[in-house]
Amino acid sequence: MTVKVTVWNECRHEVEDEEVQKVYPETIGGCIVDGLNPYGFELRLTTLDDEGQGLTDSLLDDTDVLIWWGHRYHGEVQEERVEKVQQRVLQGMGLIVLHSGHHAKIFKRLMGTSCNLAWREADHGECERIWALQPSHPIAEGLPPYIELPKSEMYGEPFDIPEPDELVFTSWYQGGEVLRSGCCFKRGRGKIFYFGPGHETFPIYRDPNIIRVIANGIRYVNQAHGDGWRLENWGRPYPAEPVERAPRQTLFKKPIRRR
Amino acid sequence: MTVKVTVWNECRHEVEDEEVQKVYPETIGGCIVDGLNPYGFELRLTTLDDEGQGLTDSLLDDTDVLIWWGHRYHGEVQEERVEKVQQRVLQGMGLIVLHSGHHAKIFKRLMGTSCNLAWREADHGECERIWALQPSHPIAEGLPPYIELPKSEMYGEPFDIPEPDELVFTSWYQGGEVLRSGCCFKRGRGKIFYFGPGHETFPIYRDPNIIRVIANGIRYVNQAHGDGWRLENWGRPYPAEPVERAPRQTLFKKPIRRR
Amino acid sequence: MTVKVTVWNECRHEVEDEEVQKVYPETIGGCIVDGLNPYGFELRLTTLDDEGQGLTDSLLDDTDVLIWWGHRYHGEVQEERVEKVQQRVLQGMGLIVLHSGHHAKIFKRLMGTSCNLAWREADHGECERIWALQPSHPIAEGLPPYIELPKSEMYGEPFDIPEPDELVFTSWYQGGEVLRSGCCFKRGRGKIFYFGPGHETFPIYRDPNIIRVIANGIRYVNQAHGDGWRLENWGRPYPAEPVERAPRQTLFKKPIRRR
Amino acid sequence: MTVKVTVWNECRHEVEDEEVQKVYPETIGGCIVDGLNPYGFELRLTTLDDEGQGLTDSLLDDTDVLIWWGHRYHGEVQEERVEKVQQRVLQGMGLIVLHSGHHAKIFKRLMGTSCNLAWREADHGECERIWALQPSHPIAEGLPPYIELPKSEMYGEPFDIPEPDELVFTSWYQGGEVLRSGCCFKRGRGKIFYFGPGHETFPIYRDPNIIRVIANGIRYVNQAHGDGWRLENWGRPYPAEPVERAPRQTLFKKPIRRR
Repeated sequence: MTVKVTVWNECRHEVEDEEVQKVYPETIGGCIVDGLNPYGFELRLTTLDDEGQGLTDSLLDDTDVLIWWGHRYHGEVQEERVEKVQQRVLQGMGLIVLHSGHHAKIFKRLMGTSCNLAWREADHGECERIWALQPSHPIAEGLPPYIELPKSEMYGEPFDIPEPDELVFTSWYQGGEVLRSGCCFKRGRGKIFYFGPGHETFPIYRDPNIIRVIANGIRYVNQAHGDGWRLENWGRPYPAEPVERAPRQTLFKKPIRRR
Repeated sequence: MTVKVTVWNECRHEVEDEEVQKVYPETIGGCIVDGLNPYGFELRLTTLDDEGQGLTDSLLDDTDVLIWWGHRYHGEVQEERVEKVQQRVLQGMGLIVLHSGHHAKIFKRLMGTSCNLAWREADHGECERIWALQPSHPIAEGLPPYIELPKSEMYGEPFDIPEPDELVFTSWYQGGEVLRSGCCFKRGRGKIFYFGPGHETFPIYRDPNIIRVIANGIRYVNQAHGDGWRLENWGRPYPAEPVERAPRQTLFKKPIRRR
Repeated sequence: MTVKVTVWNECRHEVEDEEVQKVYPETIGGCIVDGLNPYGFELRLTTLDDEGQGLTDSLLDDTDVLIWWGHRYHGEVQEERVEKVQQRVLQGMGLIVLHSGHHAKIFKRLMGTSCNLAWREADHGECERIWALQPSHPIAEGLPPYIELPKSEMYGEPFDIPEPDELVFTSWYQGGEVLRSGCCFKRGRGKIFYFGPGHETFPIYRDPNIIRVIANGIRYVNQAHGDGWRLENWGRPYPAEPVERAPRQTLFKKPIRRR
Repeated sequence: MTVKVTVWNECRHEVEDEEVQKVYPETIGGCIVDGLNPYGFELRLTTLDDEGQGLTDSLLDDTDVLIWWGHRYHGEVQEERVEKVQQRVLQGMGLIVLHSGHHAKIFKRLMGTSCNLAWREADHGECERIWALQPSHPIAEGLPPYIELPKSEMYGEPFDIPEPDELVFTSWYQGGEVLRSGCCFKRGRGKIFYFGPGHETFPIYRDPNIIRVIANGIRYVNQAHGDGWRLENWGRPYPAEPVERAPRQTLFKKPIRRR
């Protein structure tokens, strides 16, 4: 079954910053979609300025995996759209949060933390080297032992996230920092993958290895199946076992102490 | 240093339900405070109907560990109070969420999930047996291998929470269900302990083992120290290492494939 | 690509115990293979009394997923065969350990713990109810919310294993115990799934839901790909970055203390 | 209660290598003991060449926390001594494994993996910067945001260990690598802390911050209490609940499918 992928791109830098226009004339989201094209997903591209902020109920209900790139206008995304995205994740939609999306409302809401980190934008960028800690992880398929980005923006520890369910990548930065840059989380029925690289003024999404990570990530966060319970608040009045008090022997009356 | 503990109790059942008044004439919060008294904490008791909903900035700023019991009026707790509690947890305040607090705004906000579960209130209650999966865990100190509650409300799986950082207790119910009833989480600098037992119409907080769990939990979630970084969004313009591009040899040009 | 599955069965109860012969005339391993037949795996069945204890290098090197059922003669399995199985797991072979395999040398070696648990064999068995804590997990595909076994042997907590990477199932027992009965672990490149049910005197492997769990488990522990590093002790004399001491500014000379 | 700490040092480099004698005339173990002296532990120092390889039953039975530094002669440590140390850890003794101890038999046995990693010894060493990912963790108390070692040996990813229960530190290396250099694990009743820095030809154990990490680690892995079950293979013939088959309603006859 073809995975239905929606790439959501804030798409304001592309309007406001000449420098970004030079790096991504087709927009950041456009570059990601072009890169993902050969992988056989059903791809849709939307932006903050589209109808319903590019996050209409009908679109989200028809999306298997949502990719999020935002930076300057996190604050404009309406709470009620964030709420809808969260509900879809808890129902099983996969979510991939890229780079500065660490401060997106939806990511902070799913993590429960500030998602703050340290950052530095060196004039001409600095080298980032992304190490695969788990070479056999599905998201590391087809990659070299590390991905080297000659020019990147530094995102450094401490990164205020819950301890990831799986830590797939850690980044080295030329300036002396490290970052847990590839993190998997489960929330409700949904899987979430945060991936650090992707600054707007460096052509990082033109690197085939970076696109490969995103493509692997899509397959990984895409829900395996729709079977089983929704995770609902569910009154279950009828017990499977009889609950009238049966004679019962208490085996342990007090603590076992050995100290 | 004495741990400053604030017990927050919704305290509406105690006003509205005769049955609860019979079980907890001193209120649920009052019973917990009485039980904790011998443990040498500095204890404060507040309720939803106190000034600032019992969650004023000055009180929270002076609280090391917050204990939360709420049920019927989660919706009344103001977002801005919830925000303040969350910030305090991220700064290092410990939080213990009891029983029906699984649906408190603050717990759902810190988890990022619905926190739904299955539940059943049998007419005369049913037996719950709380097993310690990690007998050596600090929260299991001084306890029997399991705590037996002859009358409890069933809270059952699936429980929609992130996979806990530590699973300390799992409950068995007479009616046939199980629950991960003792779960530890870290968020920011703060530690959170969810503990399942504690229905308003059963005298569960009169059980010395249940109070012992809460006392152990207070010591466990109390921040070990205040050293080190706050987890802030921090621009760090000056690298520790020179970042001008140095000659660099790329060791791995393509993936290592063995398939 | 068809998954190559080897079902290893101790197969001594089937020789020694009339009662087991009645329940599993085709042997336990035979019953599992028959059950898995419709799932399209390439299935092989071996036993402790086959050549090389049913664990020859050539067989293991040609196995994607190994299923392990043993009980009474764990001690007979040669260290050097255990070593080989462990190496294959670290290289990426999937391993499913069933029921009393919790005490198999290979499982204890991969866990690093005693893998002890509590147990009880009631005369006519007792009810076990296996709850899916993660209904959306691949191993829970196509299952009811719980699997009910009218007659089972009790395996109870505390179960001395490392905290699982993923806890998929927890069992309820009629006699009052619980068990983390469906646990996933990663070791090296390999994935391991422990599944509790399966006593030799109850026809548990005739339950289609139990077989479905094993089939789902095979797909889950089967290595996703063979790309990337083997996890070797690897001297890497040539750095990617120049390591001669460059001028460096120490940003933090002493701890940040706020207490 | 004073924590009884035994520092186990292979202590052969100190005999065989002039260079090491210059760096650690008092031996590596001696330097660690001197550093820990002000912290108020009861300290014992033993070596591979002491009676019982410095790991007699009586010593281990009287040890709360064992610190392990070994490198060249891991192979000489007798299996039966390794077995004893493992049993003590499972019973609750804390273990701190330093640097090249990643290849010690006891560490590999407790992890179940090869514990391989990449390594490089640059002629004059290279800079290592150890970042605290969890500044509020007890092991990070009193430390700067990172510890900078001007000369260190590179230990790099992939590091073949199970995903740590807690990841406290990650190291940056001048040559371009990273390492999960501060990892906590639980096995049985015992806690284990692996800490990466500490090459024999660099005076790393003279750095007060490195000693502080070890001192914090001792307090962290020291068992909180001795209460509760030993994790034994325990037949429990008498159920707490009656197990004769009671009338039972099966709530779920088939999977809930929504796909």
